[in-house]
Amino acid sequence: MNSFDYCNPVRIVFGEGEIARLSDLIPKGSKIMITSGGGSIFKNGIWDQVKSALAGYDIVEFKGIEPNPQYSTLMKAVDLAKKEKIDFLLAVGGGSVLDGTKFISVAAKYQGEDPWDIVEKGAKVNEAIPLGSVITLPATGSEMNCLAVVSRKEQEKKLPFGNPLIFPKFSIIDPAVTFSLPERQVSNGIVDTFVHVMEQYMTHPVNTPLQDRQAEGLILALMEEAAKLKADPNDYQVRANIFWMATWALNGWLNVGNVQCWATHMIGHELTAQTGTDHGRTLALVLPALWNHKRKEKGDKLVQFGQRVFGITGSDRDSIVDQTIAATKAFFASVGIVPSRKEYGITDEICRKVAKYIGDRGKLGDLKNIGEKEVYEILQLCD
Amino acid sequence: MNSFDYCNPVRIVFGEGEIARLSDLIPKGSKIMITSGGGSIFKNGIWDQVKSALAGYDIVEFKGIEPNPQYSTLMKAVDLAKKEKIDFLLAVGGGSVLDGTKFISVAAKYQGEDPWDIVEKGAKVNEAIPLGSVITLPATGSEMNCLAVVSRKEQEKKLPFGNPLIFPKFSIIDPAVTFSLPERQVSNGIVDTFVHVMEQYMTHPVNTPLQDRQAEGLILALMEEAAKLKADPNDYQVRANIFWMATWALNGWLNVGNVQCWATHMIGHELTAQTGTDHGRTLALVLPALWNHKRKEKGDKLVQFGQRVFGITGSDRDSIVDQTIAATKAFFASVGIVPSRKEYGITDEICRKVAKYIGDRGKLGDLKNIGEKEVYEILQLCD
Repeated sequence: MNSFDYCNPVRIVFGEGEIARLSDLIPKGSKIMITSGGGSIFKNGIWDQVKSALAGYDIVEFKGIEPNPQYSTLMKAVDLAKKEKIDFLLAVGGGSVLDGTKFISVAAKYQGEDPWDIVEKGAKVNEAIPLGSVITLPATGSEMNCLAVVSRKEQEKKLPFGNPLIFPKFSIIDPAVTFSLPERQVSNGIVDTFVHVMEQYMTHPVNTPLQDRQAEGLILALMEEAAKLKADPNDYQVRANIFWMATWALNGWLNVGNVQCWATHMIGHELTAQTGTDHGRTLALVLPALWNHKRKEKGDKLVQFGQRVFGITGSDRDSIVDQTIAATKAFFASVGIVPSRKEYGITDEICRKVAKYIGDRGKLGDLKNIGEKEVYEILQLCD
Repeated sequence: MNSFDYCNPVRIVFGEGEIARLSDLIPKGSKIMITSGGGSIFKNGIWDQVKSALAGYDIVEFKGIEPNPQYSTLMKAVDLAKKEKIDFLLAVGGGSVLDGTKFISVAAKYQGEDPWDIVEKGAKVNEAIPLGSVITLPATGSEMNCLAVVSRKEQEKKLPFGNPLIFPKFSIIDPAVTFSLPERQVSNGIVDTFVHVMEQYMTHPVNTPLQDRQAEGLILALMEEAAKLKADPNDYQVRANIFWMATWALNGWLNVGNVQCWATHMIGHELTAQTGTDHGRTLALVLPALWNHKRKEKGDKLVQFGQRVFGITGSDRDSIVDQTIAATKAFFASVGIVPSRKEYGITDEICRKVAKYIGDRGKLGDLKNIGEKEVYEILQLCD
């Protein structure tokens, strides 16, 4: 295990009906900007719950943060937040709304010329508008971390950034709000959760037996609950368990003292930036190919994962690795995701472009050995 | 899964040599009271590291906090902290030193008549002297929670209390400091960790598949590392893994949304208060007997634990439960703890006294059905 320095101060308020507690969580007298996405919260009753909980607060609304939140949209929100002298941001929606709001919170207080520098150049920020969330989609884990991913279409960029200032002060997770989600988003969220865990697990080994068991345990539970969800999409307990797993997968509890990969996400982000393919689907496409390509250096973990999670037996390591990759694809298929490069419109030209773009920014992976050549090779191995 | 409200803001600084970072963690200009125990830190080099890291700070020392920290001792520290106008407390030692310091932190700011009321009557406190820790013993998990257990000998009491004000601002965990620990304390700590996990797992089921897998994963890893420690007590990685497990076992990550038992601990505390037996040893004595007594209501979890952790097969539930209890005792024995009521001086008179004392305070357990009669029966089932 490596040395580490860890702190996660996010307060999680979890359970059905907990949106009603918003006024306990946001300082009295705050002027709040509520950010939201494409409008589903206005149809499924979430907005009514939020408004009713915040009766008496001075509220400004900012709607229309899109999936893969765009810099241009977010800068409009930044202007509004400055103009209205907002002192609390409340994101109501999925990971894109929350990630976008995290950007707004630091961009609105940024002293430099262009807030995009916070994302692309790691420019220093000293202050942020405090933020909270009512998270409506189990997927990103953004509700309990200090990470965000934002996009800049005109530059074909989708980039992550992190800063302790963007930890939400609180996140309300009401699993009942997920009943109205389209099946496609639920499936994407399950794959996203799976891959978040794997980015922190499927690396070269650094002697982390506890973290390994926790990652494997999360996947075992996720597979069980995903099967139950298929059998009964209206089971509150299953919805609750899956949401908590999504949060757990990216709140830092799995990676303390560990190394991390994140190459699948970085390649996936670029494929989304180029083709608009759902995030979860690009991950399902890239992960098995990347494991296949890096089967030597990830071999110990691939074998351990196959044995402990899928119960694969035998002594031939290559065969165990093949079976582990096949079982992972089968799990993705079981939640309805059978990825296809062709179907997603990922041409050879796009593969070359993505590879070059990533290669120009440096090497990926826990061993920093995935550059332009390797990204192109991995994309060739995709289905 | 139940609804929950969770926040744990403790910063963990983990790794060899990290004591040197103390001055980054304590506000400049603070007047610090350093609390410690029986003196081992003055022999093993920890004190020198602390003093060197805090050169330039105004420091007051309070030594001699004993195992099962005593109210009378702690009140002397409270008086000193008030007299010296201390504005930061640094506990350097094991769980007893840290728990005692947590009491000092709130007692020194308590406005009521007798600070013992905070412990026994849950008296309200609004303020505390901020505290940090250099934790030297993997066992209590006190380094990353807002709980403490303190004793009052003259009243034969050993009681827990909790308050968000007593979360340490930080805890430094340097696994290398554990090399000098006596084997007995290391064994006690391993059993304490095991039982902390079980108090949050071995309950009636409330549909917590993720939390279950995490608890089972921790025990699987703990058993593996305990065996490695026996083979090579000088392996830093094993020491690091065991320390992180001890912290993990009681930082709240396992019990969110779950129910908890804690009857083993409450009975164990009273046995320690009566006989002075080590905390870890009273737990090893009581846990198997309590499982045996509550084999019906804990049956689903006992079977699941036996199957998933010990690999017990077969279909006879009673037999699986018996084997699970036997395998747990065998694990305790493997780290050198074979508990004995007789050896620990637990007479029938003490059993009756402990049972009555607990019964008078109310019922224990996740189902609140362990009263005087049941405690006495459980003690009769002990080895």
